[in-house]
Amino acid sequence: MTITVFGTPASPFTLILIYVLKELGLSFENVPTTHEDIKTPEYLATKHPFGISPVLTDNGFQVYESRAIARYLINKYQGTKSSTVLIPSDVHKAALVEQFISVETSYYTQPLVKLLTQLISVRRQGNEPDLKIVNEAREELGKTLDVYEKLLEGKDYLTGEFSLADITHLPLTYYAINSACEGDLWNQRPNVSKWLKNLNERESWKNIATEYKLSEQIKFTKYNG
Amino acid sequence: MTITVFGTPASPFTLILIYVLKELGLSFENVPTTHEDIKTPEYLATKHPFGISPVLTDNGFQVYESRAIARYLINKYQGTKSSTVLIPSDVHKAALVEQFISVETSYYTQPLVKLLTQLISVRRQGNEPDLKIVNEAREELGKTLDVYEKLLEGKDYLTGEFSLADITHLPLTYYAINSACEGDLWNQRPNVSKWLKNLNERESWKNIATEYKLSEQIKFTKYNG
Repeated sequence: MTITVFGTPASPFTLILIYVLKELGLSFENVPTTHEDIKTPEYLATKHPFGISPVLTDNGFQVYESRAIARYLINKYQGTKSSTVLIPSDVHKAALVEQFISVETSYYTQPLVKLLTQLISVRRQGNEPDLKIVNEAREELGKTLDVYEKLLEGKDYLTGEFSLADITHLPLTYYAINSACEGDLWNQRPNVSKWLKNLNERESWKNIATEYKLSEQIKFTKYNG
Repeated sequence: MTITVFGTPASPFTLILIYVLKELGLSFENVPTTHEDIKTPEYLATKHPFGISPVLTDNGFQVYESRAIARYLINKYQGTKSSTVLIPSDVHKAALVEQFISVETSYYTQPLVKLLTQLISVRRQGNEPDLKIVNEAREELGKTLDVYEKLLEGKDYLTGEFSLADITHLPLTYYAINSACEGDLWNQRPNVSKWLKNLNERESWKNIATEYKLSEQIKFTKYNG
């Protein structure tokens, strides 16, 4: 079995995949890619036609898009190398995990990417963030987190038990809090804050933070203005 | 077995679900919802906490978000009432279906919704569409369709065989072509155009168009300016 992940571990979407691999107990090789690599004609023709990372190869089989890759790994390997269940076999429980991944994609990650594009990417290019976009994204994300605060009442994780739905939230949130310094959005909501603490304290994530030197990545992306 | 779909069939996301139900050969009841219904405290508390349709109930079990509902129905019922396969049991084939659903969600539906919001929703409220947004969305969608044109070379459907990935594209595209009159985006690309023809000609979709009077819906949303 040779699993290769193409993508820089500094990317939140590559981190989602590494998090899944660690939880499933799978070993893999990481081939870091740069912003330039993923726009070359060769990468577009042979790896990801939209010029995005991560991409995964597994014994000659290739698949792109982080959530699709995660489902593939779970579908193929869950239960073989670790006892962690990321998508339950019960159809009803699995449906609620998928429901929350869809919520994450549409109502959480979309405003969060909008916010981080301004507060990290735009600043890194030496430009001032558009405060109108920042405020709109913060407001939109705040409304989403108000719903999360209710849904997380009495729960350790989004669907009750730890799942892929929790994993897809963490890496972007980590950057938002530690690099963009937007932690107030999460901290002012007790249930959301407790959920995040549970995720941050999982061994697999702590190992990733150490192994991939996430505190260095944060310095690199941090705005010191 | 009692399956109920809450959502107006005029909504592209409810149509995705109805399309899946028809392909799987499942009978269901439709409870239409209005824009007002889905924002009531009762709906938010008992149906969808973000105030969106569709929502599905199945013998007491409830799930929201169209793509999550579709996966649930396939996971539970595929092969029981029809021979149509929407997500193959082979892990590699299933991964490629999920890969294309992620592509649809991120690179196709996002610019398309941006476009239709201006050309249908904004106009319906009696306002002029923002042409800057329209042009940006058209350009973004055009680039995506250029990639589709290559990926569809020699194929009848996105992954070769008909799947859930094709279904999630059709309803919004139907509105874009027939209501917003943006058909040139699809028609000028031969492989994309042939793919769309294959989808439009499926019995299940033709039945939906007749049963839910889609030509009436189009008139209702059509811009006659």
